Amino acid sequence: MLEQKGDLTSFRPDIKVVDCTLRDGGLVNNFEFSDDFVRDLYKANVAAGIDYMEFGYKASKEVFDPKDFGKWKFCNEEDIRAVVGENNTDLKIAVMADVGRTDLNDIPPKSESVVDLIRVATYIYQIPAAIEMIEDFAKKGYEVTVNIMAISTASETELDLALELLGKSSANVIYLVDSYGSLFPEQMCRLAEKYLAVGEKYNKAIGIHAHNNQQLAFANTIQTASIGISYLDATVNGMGRGAGNCCTELLLGFLRNPKYKIANIFKFIEKHMVPLKKSGVTWGSDIQYIITGQANQHPRAAIAFTAEKRTDYSKFYTEVTAYE
Amino acid sequence: MLEQKGDLTSFRPDIKVVDCTLRDGGLVNNFEFSDDFVRDLYKANVAAGIDYMEFGYKASKEVFDPKDFGKWKFCNEEDIRAVVGENNTDLKIAVMADVGRTDLNDIPPKSESVVDLIRVATYIYQIPAAIEMIEDFAKKGYEVTVNIMAISTASETELDLALELLGKSSANVIYLVDSYGSLFPEQMCRLAEKYLAVGEKYNKAIGIHAHNNQQLAFANTIQTASIGISYLDATVNGMGRGAGNCCTELLLGFLRNPKYKIANIFKFIEKHMVPLKKSGVTWGSDIQYIITGQANQHPRAAIAFTAEKRTDYSKFYTEVTAYE
Repeated sequence: MLEQKGDLTSFRPDIKVVDCTLRDGGLVNNFEFSDDFVRDLYKANVAAGIDYMEFGYKASKEVFDPKDFGKWKFCNEEDIRAVVGENNTDLKIAVMADVGRTDLNDIPPKSESVVDLIRVATYIYQIPAAIEMIEDFAKKGYEVTVNIMAISTASETELDLALELLGKSSANVIYLVDSYGSLFPEQMCRLAEKYLAVGEKYNKAIGIHAHNNQQLAFANTIQTASIGISYLDATVNGMGRGAGNCCTELLLGFLRNPKYKIANIFKFIEKHMVPLKKSGVTWGSDIQYIITGQANQHPRAAIAFTAEKRTDYSKFYTEVTAYE
Repeated sequence: MLEQKGDLTSFRPDIKVVDCTLRDGGLVNNFEFSDDFVRDLYKANVAAGIDYMEFGYKASKEVFDPKDFGKWKFCNEEDIRAVVGENNTDLKIAVMADVGRTDLNDIPPKSESVVDLIRVATYIYQIPAAIEMIEDFAKKGYEVTVNIMAISTASETELDLALELLGKSSANVIYLVDSYGSLFPEQMCRLAEKYLAVGEKYNKAIGIHAHNNQQLAFANTIQTASIGISYLDATVNGMGRGAGNCCTELLLGFLRNPKYKIANIFKFIEKHMVPLKKSGVTWGSDIQYIITGQANQHPRAAIAFTAEKRTDYSKFYTEVTAYE
């Protein structure tokens, strides 16, 4: 086990908090956030000292029809600028680019964009395609991070090979991702040691993106942070696909860096998250997500169960764990 | 840091799961459970392989008027027997006895009772009174455990002294309790090491009772279990005071002992917890409990905030963290 880095009465300046509310939360409401919501979230993040704010996906309009989604599925440059102007703040702007669902021609040189960071999301079998994207974005002048998704169902040998390839790439940060919310802290810490060793070898930071199926998103985030992971993804109120994510308001309560000002997040929750939830937008830990998390499965069955307002948990448990 | 004990593909036979749904959950609904609820919970616990089921408090009728509470505040022998008969099962029956709120004359010799375990709950300043109770119950033939409450606001020196006294007592198990849900896993593990050292010295098991203010009840339970804590408190659906407890359905998904059968818990949730929540009984992680947890305070202000259906979190944050 790696030594603990830092302690509860000081802080590590290498730690960065990455707000993913619009991007992961957009998976819940089809990216249909009001302009007010987005503008106030930006202001709250700036005031709270958040390091990065992810506005959404940079999705290909060849693959997805803009008529079917809110604008943050595509993150047009002018839409981001309508919120942030020239972004003369300490908050950096991020967007996510999925392998196979992004048009590289949509990404201008950094000199023409207010975006600072592009986050590449890849499955393990797409690593060569991910590396093409990473190199393109890095050459254009962006910071680049890479999320390897669904590692809880990948072979450890393949994961080791993927990490070596990404270590040699131009990515600045490699993310440990618990896509299904299936991993316990002892497993996350073992994986974190693997990622941190590659980070050490190739001089890269390591990030974490956790899901809350087993009410472990916050715990997994702070436990892996305590052994050296430094890019910490969070969303306000934990808003995100299915069981959601690590809550920003929990994470800021743990971090001791005085630049983080949690009260701004509470204000935002009160003004925007309470009415959003009242309007019927639903996410967060619940029995159906526990069941898919324990079964190490994508939560799509649980999301459908939620949408149908089912509560027959024992039938769902039998369905999800069926062997045939 | 202590070595990990056990691993994720085997199991430790010393681990016991203690269901506290009626006792800690009773703090939410004034112990007014239907007879059906209690009978089905007993059956579900037996079928699920749970080791102990806590029925409620053994509260003094001098201190509390039975007219003001459901019957599980008092746990009369005949009320327990109406549910369990002679309890010819592997499930053991527990009740809680608060220092200063229990009449020792209400506790018959074990030979006259179907109760197996009495759980003494004490503040650190009440330890001598707690020890009187422990010795009385042990002499009467019961298993005895002791919970030291609110340790996150006690001095570590006093805690060390208290643990030594309890180590020399007849208690079988000493419980590490995070009353305010304020402790992070690294703090809980540091405390667990302290308790485990006393347990080692005096040949006692150590238990954990966690609260979910910061969504850490499950994480704190399994992290401290992984270094040797063996009595694990949980409640179905996490039902309990304020933010609630470690969920039985999460804990059984972590433990690998084949005697635990999680499907029975899902069935119980479907039949009883869904309607209970619909009827307006409220518990579980929410912003107000995060705020009192972060502030290391009793959740009573957050419970009142919840009862008043307030959502002005930033005002509440200012109230709770006021210096004057």
